[in-house]
Amino acid sequence: MKKFMDDDFLLRTQAARDLYHEAAENAPIIDYHCHLSAQEIAQDRRFKSITEVWLGGDHYKWRLMRADGIEENRITGGADDKDKFRAWASVMPRLIGSPLYHWSHLELKKYFGIDSPLTPATAGLIYDRCEAMLHTEGFSAQQLILRSNVKALCTTDDPIDDLYWHGVIRESDFPVQVLPAWRPDRALAIGKEDFAPYIHKLGEVSGVDVDGLDGLKKALTVRMDHFAAMGCVLSDHGMDALPWEPVSGEEANRIFRARMDGAKLNKKEEDAFTTALLLFLGAEYHRRGWVMQLHMGVTRNRNSRAFAALGPDTGFDGISDQISIHNIYSFLDALDKEEQLPKTILYSLNPQDNAALDVLIAAFQRPVGEHIAKMQHGSAWWFNDHQDGMRAQLSSLAAEGVLGNFVGMLTDSRSFLSYARHDYFRRILCDYLGGLVENGEYPADRETLLGLVEDICWRNASRYFGI
Amino acid sequence: MKKFMDDDFLLRTQAARDLYHEAAENAPIIDYHCHLSAQEIAQDRRFKSITEVWLGGDHYKWRLMRADGIEENRITGGADDKDKFRAWASVMPRLIGSPLYHWSHLELKKYFGIDSPLTPATAGLIYDRCEAMLHTEGFSAQQLILRSNVKALCTTDDPIDDLYWHGVIRESDFPVQVLPAWRPDRALAIGKEDFAPYIHKLGEVSGVDVDGLDGLKKALTVRMDHFAAMGCVLSDHGMDALPWEPVSGEEANRIFRARMDGAKLNKKEEDAFTTALLLFLGAEYHRRGWVMQLHMGVTRNRNSRAFAALGPDTGFDGISDQISIHNIYSFLDALDKEEQLPKTILYSLNPQDNAALDVLIAAFQRPVGEHIAKMQHGSAWWFNDHQDGMRAQLSSLAAEGVLGNFVGMLTDSRSFLSYARHDYFRRILCDYLGGLVENGEYPADRETLLGLVEDICWRNASRYFGI
Amino acid sequence: MKKFMDDDFLLRTQAARDLYHEAAENAPIIDYHCHLSAQEIAQDRRFKSITEVWLGGDHYKWRLMRADGIEENRITGGADDKDKFRAWASVMPRLIGSPLYHWSHLELKKYFGIDSPLTPATAGLIYDRCEAMLHTEGFSAQQLILRSNVKALCTTDDPIDDLYWHGVIRESDFPVQVLPAWRPDRALAIGKEDFAPYIHKLGEVSGVDVDGLDGLKKALTVRMDHFAAMGCVLSDHGMDALPWEPVSGEEANRIFRARMDGAKLNKKEEDAFTTALLLFLGAEYHRRGWVMQLHMGVTRNRNSRAFAALGPDTGFDGISDQISIHNIYSFLDALDKEEQLPKTILYSLNPQDNAALDVLIAAFQRPVGEHIAKMQHGSAWWFNDHQDGMRAQLSSLAAEGVLGNFVGMLTDSRSFLSYARHDYFRRILCDYLGGLVENGEYPADRETLLGLVEDICWRNASRYFGI
Repeated sequence: MKKFMDDDFLLRTQAARDLYHEAAENAPIIDYHCHLSAQEIAQDRRFKSITEVWLGGDHYKWRLMRADGIEENRITGGADDKDKFRAWASVMPRLIGSPLYHWSHLELKKYFGIDSPLTPATAGLIYDRCEAMLHTEGFSAQQLILRSNVKALCTTDDPIDDLYWHGVIRESDFPVQVLPAWRPDRALAIGKEDFAPYIHKLGEVSGVDVDGLDGLKKALTVRMDHFAAMGCVLSDHGMDALPWEPVSGEEANRIFRARMDGAKLNKKEEDAFTTALLLFLGAEYHRRGWVMQLHMGVTRNRNSRAFAALGPDTGFDGISDQISIHNIYSFLDALDKEEQLPKTILYSLNPQDNAALDVLIAAFQRPVGEHIAKMQHGSAWWFNDHQDGMRAQLSSLAAEGVLGNFVGMLTDSRSFLSYARHDYFRRILCDYLGGLVENGEYPADRETLLGLVEDICWRNASRYFGI
Repeated sequence: MKKFMDDDFLLRTQAARDLYHEAAENAPIIDYHCHLSAQEIAQDRRFKSITEVWLGGDHYKWRLMRADGIEENRITGGADDKDKFRAWASVMPRLIGSPLYHWSHLELKKYFGIDSPLTPATAGLIYDRCEAMLHTEGFSAQQLILRSNVKALCTTDDPIDDLYWHGVIRESDFPVQVLPAWRPDRALAIGKEDFAPYIHKLGEVSGVDVDGLDGLKKALTVRMDHFAAMGCVLSDHGMDALPWEPVSGEEANRIFRARMDGAKLNKKEEDAFTTALLLFLGAEYHRRGWVMQLHMGVTRNRNSRAFAALGPDTGFDGISDQISIHNIYSFLDALDKEEQLPKTILYSLNPQDNAALDVLIAAFQRPVGEHIAKMQHGSAWWFNDHQDGMRAQLSSLAAEGVLGNFVGMLTDSRSFLSYARHDYFRRILCDYLGGLVENGEYPADRETLLGLVEDICWRNASRYFGI
Repeated sequence: MKKFMDDDFLLRTQAARDLYHEAAENAPIIDYHCHLSAQEIAQDRRFKSITEVWLGGDHYKWRLMRADGIEENRITGGADDKDKFRAWASVMPRLIGSPLYHWSHLELKKYFGIDSPLTPATAGLIYDRCEAMLHTEGFSAQQLILRSNVKALCTTDDPIDDLYWHGVIRESDFPVQVLPAWRPDRALAIGKEDFAPYIHKLGEVSGVDVDGLDGLKKALTVRMDHFAAMGCVLSDHGMDALPWEPVSGEEANRIFRARMDGAKLNKKEEDAFTTALLLFLGAEYHRRGWVMQLHMGVTRNRNSRAFAALGPDTGFDGISDQISIHNIYSFLDALDKEEQLPKTILYSLNPQDNAALDVLIAAFQRPVGEHIAKMQHGSAWWFNDHQDGMRAQLSSLAAEGVLGNFVGMLTDSRSFLSYARHDYFRRILCDYLGGLVENGEYPADRETLLGLVEDICWRNASRYFGI
């Protein structure tokens, strides 16, 4: 029996252990997609309790607490920090097989040096010990990032964001690259109620009179220039299904203007606008050398009562079964045909799409550098960020593409402790690769294997994004 | 090499063996969803041959016999019992990797003490031995249930059923709870030819004049009261896709009356009626504290020739690829918004839906008790009731939710021998949990682990259903 | 640690090794679906370099080269053979976990006796050694087939093909059965631009005046008679989703004639024509005792720029998410109802369809012989032809059907070296079956197990196809 979560956690073969300890464990982190707050980094935020840092915004944990019968007051409500922590601790022993169980213990160990299991019995002691440590050196936002060996991270930012705090960080002596990433979802969400006010605001911020689609494109271009000046190298789009409803520029302009004038659009018109704007943005990303990320298969805010009470990003999003492989082909082909397809990372939140996506990206690979895959299938993400999910993404990519060129893991997280997820990924990666070697499926060629591990852990990302 | 199906069958680690033998093997069974006949239990039916008990109504086996080239006469036709048994025995050696291969041997061992493999060579002897035993003590319907350590079971009953036999069982000294479960599929099937006669019959049975949707609701309420009086605690709905077509009460009433007057409805009208009635029923279940089960992804009677010859439930149903995750969110949200969402168990017959369903239920969890998950993803079911299917359901639930709160296994069966499937499930469960412990993914904390196993085997179900 | 790709490659248990070496390794091959050229076989083509035989038409490899950043010139362009081979060799070490990595080494070992890994460092030597060997005995098309222990193979042929080269092979003393297979995709593709010219050509070739749907059926019948005379025993259809739009014969005829007169059809009309013609063909296959193969879930030529430059079958096809389980049920039922359903093999390129297809085929099983399954779920195919894909197909079939009756592997290949894929399949099969035995899930009954392995390797196919 392996010991509970020791140094060789998840590493079932000697080859896996060697790869992890020699090439992965101490490799740098390039966290190219996360939701950290640039302001908190700039201001080097400190935390008063493990509850604040762990449960403050972590809807992954909130969902599990609700599934264990915990009252909302002890999750997102007014209960005190220690009580909330005890509530989480009471769930922990029920979480056999959960990635949250592992993340929690990896974080306790990595940042707080605690390796006893978190249970109702240990909760009080662990809470107190963490609280004491949080007031010492090493637990501010910047220190947590530095201790995690992060070399670069990309936040997620709206086009109207002034990126003030990114500027502050740049001017400071913080040695980690903290880059903005361009997430224009609101400019594409023509069906949402706040679309028109948002567009007006975008016009203001960019100093462009947005009286039609050309104006909108101009405004976005101004903002992309600003993002580029602040070091942005990648964009990000979140959606349910990618639409594909190509129309003329005139028609797209008519639809946009109608909406701005207060008209109600039908689904087809909305899709036509989104298609037109996505094509414009894709070409812009290509021109700028940015990477395009498409996060598909998400359905959001599906519990009305909870949304009214708690707002978005509180644990009520889900996996859609609606992404259209055909639309993705059509969209990428339309860009590629004009030689305007940027480097692209596709993600689907629905793991049933793995095979189709891994095969799809192969149809758009073009040379962008030696041992670089222009088109990527993104790492198992959000609800798939667990052993089976990551393993399925790795082996599907290996079966259909070139695993050695994979740009690897990202946290997608709001928490300064969640770099433990890179460690989780690396263990799973090394266990997978080591298993292949042990089973005679790949030569036991130490140098090549260590190179592959380092590439997937960080070097591929560094070369792909140019950071 | 492990011995063929010995006491440690499927248990690959010492931790798994310990968990199984100490906590699972002898735990009680709460079979909260099956298709046993209350009449057969009440009358304590006896069986004249292993063919009658094994092949009499078991369309799982029939399908495999057809796939092995057996003539229908030896499956559902007039061939004699021994010949049919020989036919099944001739298929057995071809069934490497099949759950039916394992169930058959588990049942022979558990109920008849036979542990030699069933082959054409052994068929005659095994048939005779079983026949002899079936005439001894321990092989009547009640005795088989008692020998299986069943504490409670829920049958599946139509609203117009008078539950006479349930009453007989209640009055008897049979110590097992035999509860009815409410399955109103026919009242919802407005597209079916026999809908109107069924509704008339329902009106009669309930003593309500069903002249509109309100009358229908009233009639169903009367019947639910009757079911409740007979101990019913859960409902069940079978369907392909859950519809979502919300309309006003007036419109739903108009559709219902039009159909009763002989009009032909379109798909949208049918869905509107079903949506309206399901919303009503969901709220009723909530009010009564009943559990709502939705069995989705089923397509039925897909072979016309066989249906004409053999009728329903003869092995010609299948897995649909049409369940709509969006509809399920919308339906549950509509109930939750009004604080009328009952405890709910979702099942999809299509295993590709596992991840989306496990994530979906998390959006509707509300406190109903400590360590109780209000929303459940039902056990791998019917065509998924095999090792890969059960393992996939367990690990997906563990990854997205709280596995420790899972209400566990049910047989969904027509056979008094099929409690062996609980044993199959428990072995797979213990193998999974034991494997996590052996791999250092969960502490080797004996007491907690035994508690988790007992919870999933039966205690969670007992608390969830209140039986 | 197992040695890299030694004789026991992929065989993890002693039972697996025994099954493979005793029953699978030297079993004959019946390659019932491939894309070899009858002309090349008839003319006993020779190859000037490993590049020609390996990279000449292998879009599987091309895709991976593109994903590694290789310029098209070194893939399908004018670069010299050695340079192209070096390009492929440079990709190889990146392909950890890829079936192409294994196929390449299996082929080097089996046909060239080379067992050192192919890397940039070994590429030159391996190229030269292969070149030398290709000019010796044993490397012509016929010799490669014979060395592979192939007993029969079925090519893939258009109805208008005169099958001249098949005739030449028949008349020769080449001892392997080389049979045509009927692939009438172009006659069904009413939406394609070249449909009318193709139909005219078909009329010419068959000597039938195709002035309506009856004429088309007559022309196809004439060609089926010709194929039958040349030994054809199976058909093949490639498609995205199977359509199901039943209309009267008059309406189908109207649609066909309208199209031939230059009308543009809508999707529904196209589907109606395809449905009608597929029903006709299915009945014809049944009458002739042919097997019907449906290859579904394919989307083709999705990169416009590449299609314009390189044409079809160059690595730009993909997996669709659009096959309709309901349509397949309806189509098969329509044939079965009239007792016109032929033996059928269903394939979906999307692995998410495995469970639904395995369950679906069970609804149409009818006796065609002892231990023969009339309806088959075809082997994991094309993008699924890897360990996980083949294992998933095997275990899903085992769970829902009778694995012992599976007709097994096919290459679907254009290369004379790709019989190594049968070896790959057999290793995975024996590893799976041996694993079940080692785990106590099937008796260690040597004779039965060896029989099952031989059946799945070739005997089932021989009996099923009658070759």
